[in-house]
Amino acid sequence: MSGNAVIGQSGGPTVVINQSLVGVIEKLREVGGVDKILGAHHAVAGIKKSDFIDLTDVPQDKLERIALTPAAALGSSRDKPDAEYCKKICEVFEQNNVRYFFYIGGNDSSDTCRIVNETAQKTGYDLVAYHVPKTIDNDLVRNDHTPGYPSAAKFVAQAFMGDDRDNAALPGIKINVVMGRHAGFLTAASVLARQKDGMGPHLIYVPEVGFDEERFCADIEEVMTKRGRCLVAVSEGIHDDEGTPMATKMAKTVEKDAHGNVQLSGSGALGDFLANLVKTKLGAKRVRADTFGYLQRSFAGLASEVDQAEARQAGQAAVEHAMKGEHPHGSIAIERVSDSPYQSRCVRIEISDVAAQTKTLDKKYVLDGRDIDPSFKDYLLPLVGSIPTNESF
Amino acid sequence: MSGNAVIGQSGGPTVVINQSLVGVIEKLREVGGVDKILGAHHAVAGIKKSDFIDLTDVPQDKLERIALTPAAALGSSRDKPDAEYCKKICEVFEQNNVRYFFYIGGNDSSDTCRIVNETAQKTGYDLVAYHVPKTIDNDLVRNDHTPGYPSAAKFVAQAFMGDDRDNAALPGIKINVVMGRHAGFLTAASVLARQKDGMGPHLIYVPEVGFDEERFCADIEEVMTKRGRCLVAVSEGIHDDEGTPMATKMAKTVEKDAHGNVQLSGSGALGDFLANLVKTKLGAKRVRADTFGYLQRSFAGLASEVDQAEARQAGQAAVEHAMKGEHPHGSIAIERVSDSPYQSRCVRIEISDVAAQTKTLDKKYVLDGRDIDPSFKDYLLPLVGSIPTNESF
Repeated sequence: MSGNAVIGQSGGPTVVINQSLVGVIEKLREVGGVDKILGAHHAVAGIKKSDFIDLTDVPQDKLERIALTPAAALGSSRDKPDAEYCKKICEVFEQNNVRYFFYIGGNDSSDTCRIVNETAQKTGYDLVAYHVPKTIDNDLVRNDHTPGYPSAAKFVAQAFMGDDRDNAALPGIKINVVMGRHAGFLTAASVLARQKDGMGPHLIYVPEVGFDEERFCADIEEVMTKRGRCLVAVSEGIHDDEGTPMATKMAKTVEKDAHGNVQLSGSGALGDFLANLVKTKLGAKRVRADTFGYLQRSFAGLASEVDQAEARQAGQAAVEHAMKGEHPHGSIAIERVSDSPYQSRCVRIEISDVAAQTKTLDKKYVLDGRDIDPSFKDYLLPLVGSIPTNESF
Repeated sequence: MSGNAVIGQSGGPTVVINQSLVGVIEKLREVGGVDKILGAHHAVAGIKKSDFIDLTDVPQDKLERIALTPAAALGSSRDKPDAEYCKKICEVFEQNNVRYFFYIGGNDSSDTCRIVNETAQKTGYDLVAYHVPKTIDNDLVRNDHTPGYPSAAKFVAQAFMGDDRDNAALPGIKINVVMGRHAGFLTAASVLARQKDGMGPHLIYVPEVGFDEERFCADIEEVMTKRGRCLVAVSEGIHDDEGTPMATKMAKTVEKDAHGNVQLSGSGALGDFLANLVKTKLGAKRVRADTFGYLQRSFAGLASEVDQAEARQAGQAAVEHAMKGEHPHGSIAIERVSDSPYQSRCVRIEISDVAAQTKTLDKKYVLDGRDIDPSFKDYLLPLVGSIPTNESF
């Protein structure tokens, strides 16, 4: 099928989403058969306005530098296209003779990909649409893990490693708020900092279980009695037993995006709320809270090498499957082949298998609603690769 | 002079303060003449209780792992000893035949070192006391820069590099609060992220100049009009023209440490206050704030190599000068010898030259109260060493 290809990057940035972009571009060049390679400037929002960046002849050395740069080089968008929006996208595709659409994003983005493809099919326009997985939340079903997660997990692990030694040096209660709306994978990565007996985090709270303020304070009191200090990892998505996010309960005004998601990041409110709660209930003196914020998803120069390679391969695999012509659409998933040595492969799955679904932490990893099982390290360490080793007297 | 040596680590941790500790230990072993090498567990607080860790025979391979571990391995303290406290310290020193005291810390800590030494002199007890510089704030006078600062600056630079690309991908107003009570050196390090025209941070506010809310909002509006996005670096120590910290003005309760310092870190309050201010005054929609918090001073695995080497050398130099026997006390300062290739040396200065004084950013670096001059990069880059390069289409 002759025509042009459009690539888009959607949703929250990661430090390896540009690896996937470059993977798509270089495989398209290698396979051939596409006239122009167009980048959608700010994802669907750009497509709607025919705002494209011509990537056909970008030199390989520039692409390699782009691959190592954090966040979506094409620009991203939080738009959630409805039927009308998708019709407009298909019109623009037809005007520009776009026959291949590669959309790099999370589950909201895979859903967008699906709707655009269905809209094209309805109007009888031949379009091949492939979703390339990406999310630091690691919450895509059918994926052993998602590109972006291992690097974000590495950041969280090394942040907790440092902060645990900081907390040991100047003892007190320290609460760190980690990204993760529905899934606790990123917060659970903090367990990698627990390298010797007594090292923190001493408590880990994830959104997979209901959060109780009284229990939270009692847990901290127990650790303080035992160790004289307490390092706590809390997911930003913690909620009560009815599912109401703590962040919503305490925020004066609640901001929502186009997908109906409440704003959790970009504010220190939840951390400060929890610190004040502990100060008040326990009468504790030295209580501090840090919110890791956007650094988790975009910090430059700290990517996991496995993550970089897999993100590139996922982009390449999407092109391979698209060009085979067997299916008009699909998504790429990462499967783990072996642990030692670590090996993975990219496979094609149906978009409907991954769209608008959320994977959460397996119950076996969530201990007593306040900790993560050490076996989670076996899952995570091969993805994160080498991390430093903390020593103590 | 025969006897034992005590080493202490004081104040806020850094990622290279253990390099200085190891530098002191290994030079003491090399030079000889000291019976026992004792680590003060939690600095002066430990000394007062005769709480020592025997470091005399710790194997070198363990010391090398300690050197690479963030934060004070001996434990730190925020205590500011008064006359009575110092008398107690001297008594403990006498009981333990301690003749050499090495204290690694910032300007509050050098002052402690001075008082302990004076107290010993008054009672006629022979004691050699040396201060080893350390602070991520980079605010010690007579030092070109201080151990700990280059690594923290590297963290801040790479954080802004990623966050700038994040902000370009999903445009809006983003405010990042950086550590620095009186000096803007660490906030100024964000300028390293500005690698290509248009890259942020677009505005940088340091405590060297008075902060005005109206002006702040007008500055952001100007950048938004020009670029459609705005990345802002704000020092936690910003204050009004009368010197009242913004953090104090908005906090309901103000927490102070033993040195009379108001708590600035470990809370997202200032960032959230500024974000709400901008939202309200400009009617801006997407406004986010992150507070980098303790990660800046303790993040594992991201130290500057120059910083690691100089912190080690500073510890070694303190021992060399102490053992010469020419002065009963002193402090070590880092002097820059040349820029290209970068070279530095450690020199002895008087404790009174550095104690209880604060160095701030040279006026030539502070542009119009809202930016940092590009020439600051010439000062900083040799210290930080290699950082990644961001690319854009």
